[in-house]
Amino acid sequence: MRHFFEELEGLRGKICEMAALVKSSIHKSVLCLTERNPDLAEQVIRDEAVINRLEIAIDELAIRLVSLNQPVASDMRLLVAALKINTDLERMGDLAMNSARRALMLLEAPPIHPPVPMQALSDLVEDMVDRSIKAFMENDADAAKNVLLADDQVDRLRNEIYENLSQRMEEQSGLVRRALGNMFIARNLERIADHATNISEDVIFLVRGVDVRHHSEV
Amino acid sequence: MRHFFEELEGLRGKICEMAALVKSSIHKSVLCLTERNPDLAEQVIRDEAVINRLEIAIDELAIRLVSLNQPVASDMRLLVAALKINTDLERMGDLAMNSARRALMLLEAPPIHPPVPMQALSDLVEDMVDRSIKAFMENDADAAKNVLLADDQVDRLRNEIYENLSQRMEEQSGLVRRALGNMFIARNLERIADHATNISEDVIFLVRGVDVRHHSEV
Repeated sequence: MRHFFEELEGLRGKICEMAALVKSSIHKSVLCLTERNPDLAEQVIRDEAVINRLEIAIDELAIRLVSLNQPVASDMRLLVAALKINTDLERMGDLAMNSARRALMLLEAPPIHPPVPMQALSDLVEDMVDRSIKAFMENDADAAKNVLLADDQVDRLRNEIYENLSQRMEEQSGLVRRALGNMFIARNLERIADHATNISEDVIFLVRGVDVRHHSEV
Repeated sequence: MRHFFEELEGLRGKICEMAALVKSSIHKSVLCLTERNPDLAEQVIRDEAVINRLEIAIDELAIRLVSLNQPVASDMRLLVAALKINTDLERMGDLAMNSARRALMLLEAPPIHPPVPMQALSDLVEDMVDRSIKAFMENDADAAKNVLLADDQVDRLRNEIYENLSQRMEEQSGLVRRALGNMFIARNLERIADHATNISEDVIFLVRGVDVRHHSEV
């Protein structure tokens, strides 16, 4: 067996690999809609299977490391954080796949005009995902704390999109189905941002040994 | 320190306590809409804080049990399952609170007629939550496997509700906002069912030591 420390680094590396794939799926799940390219959606659907396999591999590695070693408190926190972050990443992959499926349905009809700022929402969310994983890789609680602040921006833009789409649904009944499809994609992005928030909270717990969940002050 | 076995039973008990509270919140979050009773929604919003505190207590207990003991494989699986089930329960509580908030908004306007079968959907979902937790308490992989089958029923009824509401939104623009509110509550229930599915998969892993996630055959 390799040295425990190396195994832990290997675990972080696998999470980083999974995060990169998840981030690419989130990006493509919105790009396929804005660029009207169904191939991108198909890629997201295919990659979800790879993400699922990575989730199982990471879980197994983390459980093996806990079982075979007697981790001290900080290593134990890393392993628990890895298990939780792994779950969040897999759910993000699911949400991206859900968006990709909705986008494929939306591509069967003409786009709505003017479009809603879905790409801007996706940019914000992808940035949160990026920063939460970087905070995990670098053990940086301050960086993780900053991610939590970005969640408000996501909620604001999501609300704007909802309001805009609701109004248009009231005015043009022919838009109802397409507006709903767009709404559900916006909702998926908001939920992905929530998972990035969860990851950031886990990083703060990991670094400081303090549980910041469910507290307004961090 | 108490005997490890007793501590593990205590952990199961706490999860059972949390599950009971979460189930009650799910029930009230729909009942407040169907009975038009805002007090029930307020209770759900208050209880969410209790659920959050329970989540932290359960996580801390599970982490302490792993750190202070050297659990054998099956106990280790129980502790990992407890951590995962705990997260799922907390998310269910969040979703119930979200439904309660939407219900409060819906109560400001007259109800939609005829109503959608939201209570029937909630009954199905509550039953899944119940059975997934019972399977955990009784270490029953077969019971957990049966929960997975119920998810299709939930998806079917949710689709029916979506289709019904979409049609009515197209026909009556005055219904758009209220139909959207109902749709989001139905969506929350579907996501709660997904969490019950996650819990059941964790129970199968716990009992059989086999990871059944992302496989169609269990």
